[in-house]
Amino acid sequence: MSLHGDSILAVGTVAFDTIRTPFGSRERVVGGAGTYVGWASSRLVKQVGLVSVIGDDFPAEELKQMESAGMNLDGVELRKGEKSFFWSGTYHMDLNTRDTLVTDLNVLADFKPVVPASMRSAPWVMLGNIDPKLQLSVLDQMEERPKLIVLDTMNYWMDSALGDLLAVIARVDVVTINDEEARQLSGQRSLVRAARYILDLGPKYLVIKKGEHGALLFQKSDGDGLEFFSAPALPLEEVVDPTGAGDTFAGGFLGHIARCGAVDFDTLKQAVVVGSALASFTCEAFGTERIRTVSDTELMDRVETFRQLVDFAPIAVPVV
Amino acid sequence: MSLHGDSILAVGTVAFDTIRTPFGSRERVVGGAGTYVGWASSRLVKQVGLVSVIGDDFPAEELKQMESAGMNLDGVELRKGEKSFFWSGTYHMDLNTRDTLVTDLNVLADFKPVVPASMRSAPWVMLGNIDPKLQLSVLDQMEERPKLIVLDTMNYWMDSALGDLLAVIARVDVVTINDEEARQLSGQRSLVRAARYILDLGPKYLVIKKGEHGALLFQKSDGDGLEFFSAPALPLEEVVDPTGAGDTFAGGFLGHIARCGAVDFDTLKQAVVVGSALASFTCEAFGTERIRTVSDTELMDRVETFRQLVDFAPIAVPVV
Repeated sequence: MSLHGDSILAVGTVAFDTIRTPFGSRERVVGGAGTYVGWASSRLVKQVGLVSVIGDDFPAEELKQMESAGMNLDGVELRKGEKSFFWSGTYHMDLNTRDTLVTDLNVLADFKPVVPASMRSAPWVMLGNIDPKLQLSVLDQMEERPKLIVLDTMNYWMDSALGDLLAVIARVDVVTINDEEARQLSGQRSLVRAARYILDLGPKYLVIKKGEHGALLFQKSDGDGLEFFSAPALPLEEVVDPTGAGDTFAGGFLGHIARCGAVDFDTLKQAVVVGSALASFTCEAFGTERIRTVSDTELMDRVETFRQLVDFAPIAVPVV
Repeated sequence: MSLHGDSILAVGTVAFDTIRTPFGSRERVVGGAGTYVGWASSRLVKQVGLVSVIGDDFPAEELKQMESAGMNLDGVELRKGEKSFFWSGTYHMDLNTRDTLVTDLNVLADFKPVVPASMRSAPWVMLGNIDPKLQLSVLDQMEERPKLIVLDTMNYWMDSALGDLLAVIARVDVVTINDEEARQLSGQRSLVRAARYILDLGPKYLVIKKGEHGALLFQKSDGDGLEFFSAPALPLEEVVDPTGAGDTFAGGFLGHIARCGAVDFDTLKQAVVVGSALASFTCEAFGTERIRTVSDTELMDRVETFRQLVDFAPIAVPVV
């Protein structure tokens, strides 16, 4: 693999999920943070190198499709005679909360990520949601400081590996987490205060994902100031399955930045919209069913919908 | 009172509130839906006629200030020897939920709203949050069909007076409720489906207020289609007291429409932003402390902040 300027290196699980939502269920569909990051970001850039681990139960046909879509799987370790990571969960009626039924680590139990030599100078790095120890290990293998490192994580790691999580947060440029996680990590109820707290831990940018309420982007400005951007969520008739929406967002977000090759607040605002648009497709069907078929036209139409959703005409000063 | 073209008639309580939030408490401050609607809308139009009832415990100085701000109080009945409506509540840490401690109806118990003759042809009508029977009675007294009738309500009336509430909803143009109330009224989890259900009850427009997550505006389009608009909420460092934020929103919303004199989706989008901007001021202090002092410059700056909050540069088609 010879690196393109837009090459993304992503670490995350490639796995099976069994999902139950109020709209139905699916048994052992392909999922995992790395998979969703891969499908989303490979729509936007030429090369996405995945670092992950699978068992020999993972379908070869699936790997072929991922490669066709632009994912380089040299960093995906295949363990003979072992099983891929498996997660099973049931969503509640509101689709915002879920119960985990089964977590079989399998190959993930003793996973030691190895970044292939050809990817160690990738300019764009996505640390998908996985044990922060593994995220740190990926960073340690990079030969030069990437242009941008994005970290996605979840409350599970705040509860079980806070020290490692804080260590990796201190080394990244962007953190993406949801609103409840931002509150948990910061101990602050106000998202503005939570953002200030988290940005003080090291990152330059913070994205707070609010599910059906959209997403907020924060950066520090002069002094103690904060700059905000608010992306709406598309009001959906039906959220069929939110599994992977956050990973899709993260992949689309970094994909857009890598494609533009620029790290500034204006590009990051666009990236939040592109990530949100791709995530809205993921929610429309189970697993990766929908995200893998999104056409350029569909994506651009949805981005336009996001723009129209928030657009309003200039308002004159009231003179009473 | 000779009617201006922008005259608003509003019904709602004028009352005392005792409020406890995590940031402090206030005893018997002036509040009530009619009061907040009045302060918000009188910033935007020349005349706001309030229809309400108070006891002789209500401070004369307060009435004078309301009149100075442009509120006509001819329709506010003063009952000698009786007490004004009193509400007391405690907000939880998240400020999204609250417990009502005391509701003393007092003068409200047998209130029969009388719309003064001079206001019976007001073109713009705000049915503030109050017993839907009283909202219906106000409508029955209008001499001609107003240009626009906006209804604000809450879950309390869905639980206790659903028949009356449905009767008044069928006669108005705009309903404003919060997201949980939209779900309760419609029995639908998806806000898109909830919106379709509520618009089928009669109104042409629906505003779903989502507190710290902003607001959604819906109108029916051709066939079974829906048009949306999404206004963000300003991320606030501190919500000191959300009491009256919904009433302020409603007053600012109708105030903007009345000021523009136009009822179309573009004007209603602006109205959602103006209402949201005014509501954000109400949240910054206890009771009406902040809303009554907002200057034109402060309001316009905040509207501009709302625009910048959602603004992003055009995004090019991804060609990979």
